[in-house]
Amino acid sequence: MVNTYQLEVVESTNKKDKPLHDQVPFGTIFTDHMFTLEYEEGKGWHEPKIVPYGPITLDPAAMIFHYGQTVFEGMKAYRTEDGRVLLFRPEKNFERLNLSSERLSIPPVDEKAMLEYLTELIKLEKNWVPATQGTSLYIRPFIISTEANLAVAPAKAYKLMIILSPVGSYFTGGLTPVIIHVEDQFTRAVKGGTGMAKTAGNYSSGYQAQANAKKAGNADVLWLDGIEKKYIEEVGSMNIFFKINGEIVTPALNGSILNGITRTSIIELLGSWGISVAQRKVSVNEIYEAYEAGQLEEVFGTGTAAVISPVGELNWQGKKMVVNNHQIGELSQKLYDTITGIQTGKVEDPLGWTVEVK
Amino acid sequence: MVNTYQLEVVESTNKKDKPLHDQVPFGTIFTDHMFTLEYEEGKGWHEPKIVPYGPITLDPAAMIFHYGQTVFEGMKAYRTEDGRVLLFRPEKNFERLNLSSERLSIPPVDEKAMLEYLTELIKLEKNWVPATQGTSLYIRPFIISTEANLAVAPAKAYKLMIILSPVGSYFTGGLTPVIIHVEDQFTRAVKGGTGMAKTAGNYSSGYQAQANAKKAGNADVLWLDGIEKKYIEEVGSMNIFFKINGEIVTPALNGSILNGITRTSIIELLGSWGISVAQRKVSVNEIYEAYEAGQLEEVFGTGTAAVISPVGELNWQGKKMVVNNHQIGELSQKLYDTITGIQTGKVEDPLGWTVEVK
Ligand SMILES: Cc1ncc(COP(=O)(O)O)c(C=O)c1O
Ligand SMILES: Cc1ncc(COP(=O)(O)O)c(C=O)c1O
Repeated sequence: MVNTYQLEVVESTNKKDKPLHDQVPFGTIFTDHMFTLEYEEGKGWHEPKIVPYGPITLDPAAMIFHYGQTVFEGMKAYRTEDGRVLLFRPEKNFERLNLSSERLSIPPVDEKAMLEYLTELIKLEKNWVPATQGTSLYIRPFIISTEANLAVAPAKAYKLMIILSPVGSYFTGGLTPVIIHVEDQFTRAVKGGTGMAKTAGNYSSGYQAQANAKKAGNADVLWLDGIEKKYIEEVGSMNIFFKINGEIVTPALNGSILNGITRTSIIELLGSWGISVAQRKVSVNEIYEAYEAGQLEEVFGTGTAAVISPVGELNWQGKKMVVNNHQIGELSQKLYDTITGIQTGKVEDPLGWTVEVK
Repeated sequence: MVNTYQLEVVESTNKKDKPLHDQVPFGTIFTDHMFTLEYEEGKGWHEPKIVPYGPITLDPAAMIFHYGQTVFEGMKAYRTEDGRVLLFRPEKNFERLNLSSERLSIPPVDEKAMLEYLTELIKLEKNWVPATQGTSLYIRPFIISTEANLAVAPAKAYKLMIILSPVGSYFTGGLTPVIIHVEDQFTRAVKGGTGMAKTAGNYSSGYQAQANAKKAGNADVLWLDGIEKKYIEEVGSMNIFFKINGEIVTPALNGSILNGITRTSIIELLGSWGISVAQRKVSVNEIYEAYEAGQLEEVFGTGTAAVISPVGELNWQGKKMVVNNHQIGELSQKLYDTITGIQTGKVEDPLGWTVEVK
């Protein structure tokens, strides 16, 4: 694909003002340009373009509106103190995009070419990568099915886009532990479903549970398995880790949770420190028992948005588990500092995770 | 809403040719006009419009593209022999639309107003309702979240549309029994999920299983429950009924299957004939045992598309259950004749199901 199709760049003649980065709500401001790529059966992915950010036009019968055949990714570009721009393991995101696409019967993209296109886009939008501590440029690649057809079947045409959004610091004023509701009524995903894919339907299906949890004072929900409502899966947009009596535990990849890139990175980083992570089934009962025994030392979510999100309290069936007295745990803080340090070039990158956009 | 907002009608100046109705693939041809309605937080649903059918324009960050917050409906308008146009229980579709919306955290519509808008649209497109036996005008109402925002949360803006598509006869040359694969790996829906809602993500999540089934010579899959993979749920876009040793059985509404309007109508029609339908858990084992005992007399799917779709063969874990020697059962045929007769005004409508568009 890289060789067959030449990237076309149409530069915007009407550049926007950059926002004050610490005051922007997540995902509401977009940069001057976007990347687009088209797919047609028989022709494959073609027509890579960087064009001014702007609306797209679709037939009302476009399959995306009816049957949800779509996948997406989420990643970030970070500004270093010396002004360079770094991506964090971007190849993993395109690899996962293709895994999600496979589950949704969407044709795969050329991962290497995608990385090149993204690099060109970021180069053009370099000035949009904010520099304040904790800020970054959020990158949203996504694929939608565009064929106008009401048949319940995979589309013959798709559009891939990458849009960019400067985002403020997730935690203003340092890491703040969150309160999480353990959800035992609604289900996010189940074995044989689409839980391991980053696809639209997985997210809106959680809104009712999230609204209920928020009404009760929680920041988000922790999903349990859809079969026994017993095993811990993940939080809204984060994987979850527990430190129990010195041991680090996280739910194993079982087909119904997302294979988080932050999750993988935490496991590898801890490994490089000589600390192993048990990836296995984790029941909510086990967590409650550890809590009662005074052994639930730390709980944290991991994801691109917050990197590390310490959990200060878990609410489950009317029972409250306060973690580390609502304070950030030592390990959570160290992991946060190290990963954000690597991402912004402040600390060494021993595992070769960052890619500079030159 | 009906009183507050006046329906605006912009008539197309460029009318299309009508297709030869028996040669049109489902859902690929659309009529001259469409209905649109907008929602904004604080303002509610507003701006009802009938406009020429044409593309819509959305921001690439529109939430529909990212988190799948969307619902839809499917219904039909039928032409009678004396040229009138009938809708079949349309109020049930708008009722179900609101139920689906509730699950997806989408604000409800005024069901009565929707019926009026639909009536106006059909009146304008009356000539698009085909007259050949077995044909109809397919009606697709749908709601998409349009706010440009990457936050994982319910949108503050939506668009509702109704598009119309003339459809050919589902079974050319009479009712043809289909071959169905009983799916025991992939899962469509589970308790606590979105299975009872008509929402996009439920459909594309089935594509992989359907493709595998088709490769093996099946027309579609029969989904089993997501927990034990033991209890029968429904087919791709149909509910399912069994006649076992004279008794009619269909899976109970359990939260993970769609409450089909054809299903309800079949149950009510049979009731009016003095035949009761057992709505309960139906295990695939039970069906297999009935088959082995020679008591599996008829199997049929029910849905707006085909009305009744006789099943001639079920394939489950390498075991083949041939039903009624691949012939249409007597009851299936009678139900099909009666319901299609009511829909097209050929037979009396004792239960008051049809609504004439005048
Ligand atoms: C459902 C879900 N789980 C986990 C994650 C964390 O994944 P990552 O670390 O790759 O951002 C995300 C966010 O991407 C997510 O959407
Ligand atoms: C999943 C599913 N089940 C069942 C049905 C049948 O419902 P109805 O009889 O209302 O068309 C449909 C089609 O609408 C469907 O999409």
